[in-house]
Amino acid sequence: MLDQDPAKVRRVTCIGAGPIGGGWAAYYLSRGYHVTSYLHQASEIDALKRLMDTAWTSLEEIGLEPGASMDNFTWTADLEKSVEQAEFIQESIPEVLELKQNLYAMLGDIADPRVVIASSTSGMSMTDIQAKCATPERTVVAHPFNPPYLLPLVEMIGGNKTEPETVDWARRFYLAAGKAPLVMQKEVPGFIATRLQEAIWREALHMVANGEATVEQIDQAVVNGPGPRWALMGPCEIFHIGGGEGGMAYCLDQFGPALKLPWTRLVAPELTQDLRNKMVDGCIAMTDGQDFATLSKKMNHGLVEIAKMKRRQSS
Amino acid sequence: MLDQDPAKVRRVTCIGAGPIGGGWAAYYLSRGYHVTSYLHQASEIDALKRLMDTAWTSLEEIGLEPGASMDNFTWTADLEKSVEQAEFIQESIPEVLELKQNLYAMLGDIADPRVVIASSTSGMSMTDIQAKCATPERTVVAHPFNPPYLLPLVEMIGGNKTEPETVDWARRFYLAAGKAPLVMQKEVPGFIATRLQEAIWREALHMVANGEATVEQIDQAVVNGPGPRWALMGPCEIFHIGGGEGGMAYCLDQFGPALKLPWTRLVAPELTQDLRNKMVDGCIAMTDGQDFATLSKKMNHGLVEIAKMKRRQSS
Repeated sequence: MLDQDPAKVRRVTCIGAGPIGGGWAAYYLSRGYHVTSYLHQASEIDALKRLMDTAWTSLEEIGLEPGASMDNFTWTADLEKSVEQAEFIQESIPEVLELKQNLYAMLGDIADPRVVIASSTSGMSMTDIQAKCATPERTVVAHPFNPPYLLPLVEMIGGNKTEPETVDWARRFYLAAGKAPLVMQKEVPGFIATRLQEAIWREALHMVANGEATVEQIDQAVVNGPGPRWALMGPCEIFHIGGGEGGMAYCLDQFGPALKLPWTRLVAPELTQDLRNKMVDGCIAMTDGQDFATLSKKMNHGLVEIAKMKRRQSS
Repeated sequence: MLDQDPAKVRRVTCIGAGPIGGGWAAYYLSRGYHVTSYLHQASEIDALKRLMDTAWTSLEEIGLEPGASMDNFTWTADLEKSVEQAEFIQESIPEVLELKQNLYAMLGDIADPRVVIASSTSGMSMTDIQAKCATPERTVVAHPFNPPYLLPLVEMIGGNKTEPETVDWARRFYLAAGKAPLVMQKEVPGFIATRLQEAIWREALHMVANGEATVEQIDQAVVNGPGPRWALMGPCEIFHIGGGEGGMAYCLDQFGPALKLPWTRLVAPELTQDLRNKMVDGCIAMTDGQDFATLSKKMNHGLVEIAKMKRRQSS
């Protein structure tokens, strides 16, 4: 609740029983929360339980928080009842705007207005979702990556009617819950991670459509090539290291012209001095100015660990 | 040599002493080969040695092959001498077409024509590189990912004058050397992995240029979101699992319309029935028809290992 320390929340309601809603429920349980799931139909409970059992196996392996137990789980097909005790609401219903708008209209009336409602939507705008809600100031997008119990990212942004305080409170809630919240500056369609992922995906579809690569070749190229690096660091830091001692500045000055090559179907932006400086300064700030030797040692260490893990898995 | 079992090769010459050439040299040494490096200038030896020492630390951690030793390394600034005993040549000089063409013209005359010459070029065409070479039939592109001693991918394709036998021989050589060779169907600018990586990179540059995300947000979005999955499987298998029991077919039928959304600046290809089938059949073949439960368990297990590794690193 907005008048409460977000680290003190103990009761979370998860609305929706699909892979995202169920994944969130298992995750919150593993962190010691009491969780109530709202199911659209009672018959969904068996599939939800199976999903949560699968999640729980992984969560136990990672390590449960003190007090975490599947016994802290309840469910109901009664929406009003599901949010009665909620101190936080995570909504993960199907990605159909009308369904979301109607749900937020109902929740806006029945849920305590001090309770934050966060939507797992993977690309819709909260401005649209909250359009029919009478208490939109406490609604926010909080988009996880699948599976939400294993990947820490939560992309966050409010809608036009969202109070900034809501976004900040929810950000602190996710931090306390062990997540990696990322508050965006703008409502961008597809947010950040999905946009980047979608760019790869569309390039892959083009390549298959044109007989330039098969499905298997695309996956092998990622897994044996850039993939392991992306588990450790993003594209900017990778190029910052790829530039050697000269870092991102060297990289852009040297390989900038490659942006004009037809190495993807996506046309590049103009590499203006301003963009160049944003990239260079951003990399230096992000890595606390650590030098090439330190950063590349860190990357190597992670890649060695991933290589060893893969060897264990395949043996 | 082409008249030799590629698994019996013992002597490799690495031309070029930068991060790629030096990385290859260290890698081949770790697999028990005798390696000769050609340096453009003798003064490059100190930087090369430092680079190889860094690589060696990681390679020792992964595990050396029997007989592997840094003592099996020699170097020279004499090109002719460098290839005298070579049974395989890995070229990694700067990405300037004229330099490569001139080098291949020289190597074409001085290196035994039965010796395969493989170029580490990250996007040039072998048809262009081999243009001035008198013995082009034994030349092939073999593009590694940086660092070449830790990432297994080697993207391969011949030029117009390359003998198919050369490509197959080199593919078997890389397999014997513990690499993951990927033979492409067509000479596509940027090959496969770099095209996919470049699509992400350009989308990221657009977002920074437009104030939609900062450098740090982009990297956090990848590392905490899709990144760890890409260390384990490619975008196709990820969506095949994302589709649940219905796999890629469900995924495309359900989320296909999302291809029309502005979730990246890259316009998607039309999702024809033919493309749909290629994606679906490709995923089923690639995963040997394993079911959702098996595949998602495998993914979860890998993600748990990565999460644990990251926790160890940050503690």
